[in-house]
Amino acid sequence: MQTSLKIAVVGSGLVGSLLAIYLKRAGHTVHVYDRNPDIRTIQFSGRSINLAVSHRGWRALDDVGLGDEIRKLAIPMDKRAIHLVGEPLAYQYYGKEGQSIYSISRGVLNRKMVDLAEAEGAEFFFNQRIWDVTLATATLHKGETEKGPWEDLPYDMVFGADGAFSRVRHRMQRQNMFNYSQEFLPIGYKELNIPANADGSHKLDKNSLHIWPRNEFMLTALPNLDGSFTCTLFMPFEGENSFEALKDKKALEDFFATHFPSTIDVIPKLVEDFFENPTSTLVTMKCYPWTYEDKVALIGDACHAIVPFYGHGMNAGFEDITVLNQMMQQYGNDWHTILKEYQKSRKPDTDAIAELSYRNFQEMSSKTADVKFHLQKKIEKWFSEKHPDKWQPLYSRVTFSYRPYAEALAQGDRQKAIIEEVMNLKGIEENWQSPAVENRILELLDKS
Amino acid sequence: MQTSLKIAVVGSGLVGSLLAIYLKRAGHTVHVYDRNPDIRTIQFSGRSINLAVSHRGWRALDDVGLGDEIRKLAIPMDKRAIHLVGEPLAYQYYGKEGQSIYSISRGVLNRKMVDLAEAEGAEFFFNQRIWDVTLATATLHKGETEKGPWEDLPYDMVFGADGAFSRVRHRMQRQNMFNYSQEFLPIGYKELNIPANADGSHKLDKNSLHIWPRNEFMLTALPNLDGSFTCTLFMPFEGENSFEALKDKKALEDFFATHFPSTIDVIPKLVEDFFENPTSTLVTMKCYPWTYEDKVALIGDACHAIVPFYGHGMNAGFEDITVLNQMMQQYGNDWHTILKEYQKSRKPDTDAIAELSYRNFQEMSSKTADVKFHLQKKIEKWFSEKHPDKWQPLYSRVTFSYRPYAEALAQGDRQKAIIEEVMNLKGIEENWQSPAVENRILELLDKS
Repeated sequence: MQTSLKIAVVGSGLVGSLLAIYLKRAGHTVHVYDRNPDIRTIQFSGRSINLAVSHRGWRALDDVGLGDEIRKLAIPMDKRAIHLVGEPLAYQYYGKEGQSIYSISRGVLNRKMVDLAEAEGAEFFFNQRIWDVTLATATLHKGETEKGPWEDLPYDMVFGADGAFSRVRHRMQRQNMFNYSQEFLPIGYKELNIPANADGSHKLDKNSLHIWPRNEFMLTALPNLDGSFTCTLFMPFEGENSFEALKDKKALEDFFATHFPSTIDVIPKLVEDFFENPTSTLVTMKCYPWTYEDKVALIGDACHAIVPFYGHGMNAGFEDITVLNQMMQQYGNDWHTILKEYQKSRKPDTDAIAELSYRNFQEMSSKTADVKFHLQKKIEKWFSEKHPDKWQPLYSRVTFSYRPYAEALAQGDRQKAIIEEVMNLKGIEENWQSPAVENRILELLDKS
Repeated sequence: MQTSLKIAVVGSGLVGSLLAIYLKRAGHTVHVYDRNPDIRTIQFSGRSINLAVSHRGWRALDDVGLGDEIRKLAIPMDKRAIHLVGEPLAYQYYGKEGQSIYSISRGVLNRKMVDLAEAEGAEFFFNQRIWDVTLATATLHKGETEKGPWEDLPYDMVFGADGAFSRVRHRMQRQNMFNYSQEFLPIGYKELNIPANADGSHKLDKNSLHIWPRNEFMLTALPNLDGSFTCTLFMPFEGENSFEALKDKKALEDFFATHFPSTIDVIPKLVEDFFENPTSTLVTMKCYPWTYEDKVALIGDACHAIVPFYGHGMNAGFEDITVLNQMMQQYGNDWHTILKEYQKSRKPDTDAIAELSYRNFQEMSSKTADVKFHLQKKIEKWFSEKHPDKWQPLYSRVTFSYRPYAEALAQGDRQKAIIEEVMNLKGIEENWQSPAVENRILELLDKS
């Protein structure tokens, strides 16, 4: 049995709320602080990418018995729906029959998570600005402005679940030997919307993640329960096809007519949404260490913010909690060891999902439209169905398994080298299902 | 003629002081702020690596006619002196006859630079803590403590020459789209000292940079004008041979007796210095952008802190000033363009010297003791003397030329690939001066 501690969680987002539930279950007093108003009382939209919950996310929810509650709010997507100009809609299944990722609105999920955490007995304090933390004593410093005056809030332990621009990390960052990097993509994103039909049904297939891949830019759409889709336009900030270039109504409408003609009918408020919604940035942030003795720990985006192209930001953050909880089970009251092992175990995996996410923009925006890529996927699928013990496709290993991200990245690189060799075989377009190809892959697997 | 501006330089280190001189020469009012006391009034020692001024550094000084003044304070080093246990001292010349790098004490040089900048009419304000800067108005915020109250100091323009932990950059870092990384080595360093002989002469050859390479750790010694040497011990923080392991007098003395027996006689105050001087850290810091409109610019370590193993920290910072000055000449009063072109032109080169510096620890600590490495260097020297137009050794291109660092890095990588092929030739140990080897290198150069 763990000694009951008084723990502060900074940040009431998805990771902060779920962590609060885990800490309550372990018998601690939990206070959650957020600088923003209670998300249940405000409108939440305009800069959101819908979430795609997959295995790792579900596990963290199911382990505390909350999966079923959340599943009611989510829509399964078993495939990508690829929209090309002048071609029929093409589907690419994500995994095996019955395997899906689940679309859920960030706002809807976050509200539910806060409700659930409150029901567990976690106390939430909204509109409370935490500006700094004294690491050695786990004391939060709260105030109206950054320059004070501040009120001191002492705890036994502090978790920084306060996102990519974490104030808790900000303090750790000023310590010596703190490694840190933040790198912005030259690509931004903007939320658009496909409303429901009059009868509440979806205008597009609701069990697909829709992609309009256009190489340097792309549009995506994920379904919501109310019949609408949340769309996201990803595009460079500057250049020929860019946010900068879409200065006015005419430029915007011409651009959509040329590149996304099939969306004209389904995005009625294009102009309003485009010019009202902000253009948001995409950042990869890495740091180390994540913890300070047995007093302070970072979790989720606060220690590993990634770009959204693998759909794993929330899944990775939830898996942090799973790993932390494993360490809590294993090391009891020894928080020094719990935090040390948590960061040590988790860091290589979050570096790996950062890399995979970064690479996946290219896959989504370009390769999904590519004939050669389709053939590669077909060969992979065919071979992995014949030899499931020898070949798990990278996407499946990342999304439909609990194997470490770092292992998935390494395995994916080996598979990539093999499939590139196979694609060079003469007549591969016709013979891809032949015993020769099968044997060649087996041979290459043996060597790798 | 440039319009005279009121310019603040934050930081009175080497780059800040030299920049002040350049800005005064261009007709501006220049105020230099430093949070520390006047370096001319305090003792400066205990955590310094001596500087090695080379071509780029001299150019920036000579362009404002200050080279000769500074040369009086410096000692030329034309070679490395390699100290191995149980072997005779070996010399490795840095370049061609007459080419040297110049050892100078950081404290001695910094004092002189402040004197020179004051003589030019720059005004220095010491013990003044700048905590923040408002970028849009080039206003400094000065105060006793970080929490205020602060006094506002408005300028036309601000330069952040405030080093690796720059407050000016700290403000820029909070902007959106600011890319940033800091990465610490697991190696620290400590200053030690070889005093002069009673007659003021040097105990070791004074025209050498002395190295005791021991793979994971090494000791270096650079000469001072007063007959002493400033030594630096580079070593991991943790592990078998580490700062952590040298806990007491006995452990330290045993360690030096085993690994640096030849230094016992020349470092008399080993124990005192070792336990009194701090163990310092080594960081590589990169960021971008470096400038804010026509208002604020970072320069030197504030925008590109590097590890010291190529001896180019100060040389790179001084070259920043050379490049900035070229832009000032070219673009007159258009500071928007001056700053934009300065950062654009300079960034790839400072990234390159960061990479070269990082790699050079291995060269200094391991390869200088390696027989194969000696042969490589001999082949390079022989070939480059025969074909100076076709092969400039990497070290020379970095240190004894003004060619861009990025070009040197790229060229160095090509040369490395060639020399590795040549080292695999049968009998290379005996035949390295043969026409066959010469032709093979020429052939490989043609292909690369």
